[in-house]
Amino acid sequence: MSVFTKKKDENFMAWYLDIVRRAQVVDSRTEVKGANVLMANGYEIWDRMKRILDEKFYVTEHKNMYFPLFIPDKFIEMESTHFEGFVPEVAYVTHAGKKKLEEKFALRPTSETIMYHMYSQWIRAYTDMPLKVNQWCNIIRIDTKDTKPLLRDREFQWTEAHTCHATPEEAVKQVEESMWIYGSFFDECCLPYLITKRPKYDTFPGALYSIAYDAPLTDGKTLQIGTTHNLDQGFAKVFNIRFQKEDGSHDYAYQTCYGLSTRVIAAVISVHGDDRGLILPPYLAPLQVVIVPILFKGKEEMVDKESKAILEKIKNANLRVKYDVSEKTSGFKFNEYELIGVPVRVEIGPKEVEKGGVTLARRDTKERIFVETDKIIETIRELFDKITEELKDRAKKLLEESISDANTYEELEKKFKGRNPGFVRTNWCGDVECADLIKEKLKAEIRGTLYGEDEKPFGLCVICTEEAQEVAYISKAY
Amino acid sequence: MSVFTKKKDENFMAWYLDIVRRAQVVDSRTEVKGANVLMANGYEIWDRMKRILDEKFYVTEHKNMYFPLFIPDKFIEMESTHFEGFVPEVAYVTHAGKKKLEEKFALRPTSETIMYHMYSQWIRAYTDMPLKVNQWCNIIRIDTKDTKPLLRDREFQWTEAHTCHATPEEAVKQVEESMWIYGSFFDECCLPYLITKRPKYDTFPGALYSIAYDAPLTDGKTLQIGTTHNLDQGFAKVFNIRFQKEDGSHDYAYQTCYGLSTRVIAAVISVHGDDRGLILPPYLAPLQVVIVPILFKGKEEMVDKESKAILEKIKNANLRVKYDVSEKTSGFKFNEYELIGVPVRVEIGPKEVEKGGVTLARRDTKERIFVETDKIIETIRELFDKITEELKDRAKKLLEESISDANTYEELEKKFKGRNPGFVRTNWCGDVECADLIKEKLKAEIRGTLYGEDEKPFGLCVICTEEAQEVAYISKAY
Repeated sequence: MSVFTKKKDENFMAWYLDIVRRAQVVDSRTEVKGANVLMANGYEIWDRMKRILDEKFYVTEHKNMYFPLFIPDKFIEMESTHFEGFVPEVAYVTHAGKKKLEEKFALRPTSETIMYHMYSQWIRAYTDMPLKVNQWCNIIRIDTKDTKPLLRDREFQWTEAHTCHATPEEAVKQVEESMWIYGSFFDECCLPYLITKRPKYDTFPGALYSIAYDAPLTDGKTLQIGTTHNLDQGFAKVFNIRFQKEDGSHDYAYQTCYGLSTRVIAAVISVHGDDRGLILPPYLAPLQVVIVPILFKGKEEMVDKESKAILEKIKNANLRVKYDVSEKTSGFKFNEYELIGVPVRVEIGPKEVEKGGVTLARRDTKERIFVETDKIIETIRELFDKITEELKDRAKKLLEESISDANTYEELEKKFKGRNPGFVRTNWCGDVECADLIKEKLKAEIRGTLYGEDEKPFGLCVICTEEAQEVAYISKAY
Repeated sequence: MSVFTKKKDENFMAWYLDIVRRAQVVDSRTEVKGANVLMANGYEIWDRMKRILDEKFYVTEHKNMYFPLFIPDKFIEMESTHFEGFVPEVAYVTHAGKKKLEEKFALRPTSETIMYHMYSQWIRAYTDMPLKVNQWCNIIRIDTKDTKPLLRDREFQWTEAHTCHATPEEAVKQVEESMWIYGSFFDECCLPYLITKRPKYDTFPGALYSIAYDAPLTDGKTLQIGTTHNLDQGFAKVFNIRFQKEDGSHDYAYQTCYGLSTRVIAAVISVHGDDRGLILPPYLAPLQVVIVPILFKGKEEMVDKESKAILEKIKNANLRVKYDVSEKTSGFKFNEYELIGVPVRVEIGPKEVEKGGVTLARRDTKERIFVETDKIIETIRELFDKITEELKDRAKKLLEESISDANTYEELEKKFKGRNPGFVRTNWCGDVECADLIKEKLKAEIRGTLYGEDEKPFGLCVICTEEAQEVAYISKAY
């Protein structure tokens, strides 16, 4: 049974659009296409993601800063190669009131240009580096494709980090640091992900190479949830980020950048949600525990008194808890808190009070256990860890099951016939023509090759049957 | 002696522009007028302010959400009265790439319209209220006056809360709750402020009344650092926020809103900073403690070892601390950390090591004391509280000294002659004509009357010498 119009397995997108709205994550009735309200639940999840990442930025010595939304058009012209793909999506501000502005401004579709304009003023010598700056901000892209809340928005929130280094080796190390930051973050979000190096033709404009984090979803499609780029000196030369080396000679800075957005929320919802609502990792959940009193005539006071005592206990343990005293039935409340993904429900009725404890119900497995009062906090904490571990296991299993091999084109074609097969691992000659044929015939894309692992081809190129150079991962992506 | 081009007392604005740049709060070399980089120091201060306010929003049950930056032009037309003052400042997006958009969008100069459009879809019955929503976001106003970092920007960060209630009494209570939230927040920021009810003609368009928080600065001008508005049913009628009451009848929601921006950072800098740099309340300071080793030949290792041990001690106490091992001289380091406003400096030299302790130096008073190693944490914590209390005292004193009385127009005129006198308390008939004369002749403004305190006039209207209705506070404002 599903509380939604469609079951997740039946019609994933209908389920998704229903759950984000009903679980108070997003409301898209704004009359602004592709720009939605991030509701309290969605906002809070993003805020917790921010804290997790900020902690990692802190230990790796990134500085948070905020740069202007407006980008002078001339900066965009300076980086015409970089912006070529973006241009149709770039929003332009041309007027203040009824008055035309002397100069039109772009709204950031990404912040390389404005940030690197500043970097060129900040960096003089090798001692000014590494410079590692992160920005949390809203991004504007007037995407012409179908917009979908959190998956494809015209305005969305993201984090973008941009770094400068004195040597190419340090830039490579930074790419790897970013992979640790994002990887360990995705782990904390209990997400499955594959890290690939994108094919040359799919590299971020201006970058030496691009690394992407793709999450397999339960419908067999994949979702790009983050990217890291080794920018080498391309931008530094255009924006003149030049520095003096220890030996007195000059060079341009070696740069990297990496970003991820509220899409990660979409991934968590999609991977773990079920037909009753959200399932959230406990440390990410806005509300971690809800206390629902089970009322029987004449015993209300006793139950209320005990519930309040338990509420205080849980609050004092610094957990995010609510005691729902509203007049709705307990069945209604159970549904409501399952919908928004509260990881643990505490049920307190006359039976529990008499037995000197409470019943704890897990959102993810629906499992219910009786716990004595003095063991409540300890047990909730253990449950949080257990839930987290089990969600991670589910993610790991989903990733493993999402990857399958195709030795021939026939096998590959069959996998994509009438369904989405997750990642298909196959052999590729490396030519863009073969990649184009895959796109054309299967409406699927080569995501890339595993980063840092030199997988040996196990057959000929699946398209042209010439010698394969790489083991490529193919999927249909959102 | 000042480390800045101008002393604070000599030329406040020159000092201010110098300190915000050099203390790494703001960099305005963006080539976008009025839109600056909030540097690491500025960003971190704002982030801590956010946390303080979020804690207060949490206990008062506000929900954080995020609404679109783009506002459909028709919403603005619906609220033409409200927007009249804003229109020349409203930025419009008209193009995506080279393509003209079918519909132009305003960039939020404030979010009433888009938020209330959503509220009308969320509120059906009295049980849906109170609705208390807060938004942290960037705001765009193409201000035509001189822009000044944090004081008057074209893009700035702010918090805006918007509430709905079932009765006018609850709206009044909400106004007062907002005054507690903002008041206690300003207290934690060690800021002086006067709360006044703005004159009728200076009320927020569409509001029943407006309350403003004005901080006196040391140059005798004042700075509005926040506002609260009782909106009554004006917006609710335009946006159709209609609800069913308990008795079955219908009414429009009673609304309030309140906001404050990164101007608060400007206030903290301006009130407490001195000719050596920032002075920050310890709980707001990005870096709270810096350890500077005092090196003598042959004793470097001993000092370094002890410094590292102290660093660990302070880190473990959850204080934000840095140990500066760079090759700069200790004098240079002292200046650098005074400039960015680190509240407590720990000096460790051979003498300190021999005596089994450290020297602690306060940023605000420059006072230095020797403390034994096992008392360090305790003493730093005590110092933080002491510094906070003393900054609050300074703020209180500044406010008290900023207020003076004028019984006649001659007295009033004299106060504004060649200087800025803070708030001048005087008698006013309440007519806008007299207020206009004050504006014209003194280039000063009536800020309002004390909120909630019915001050009795102590003379005739200072302008027309008719009977006075109110005791008004006049100042020159930024």
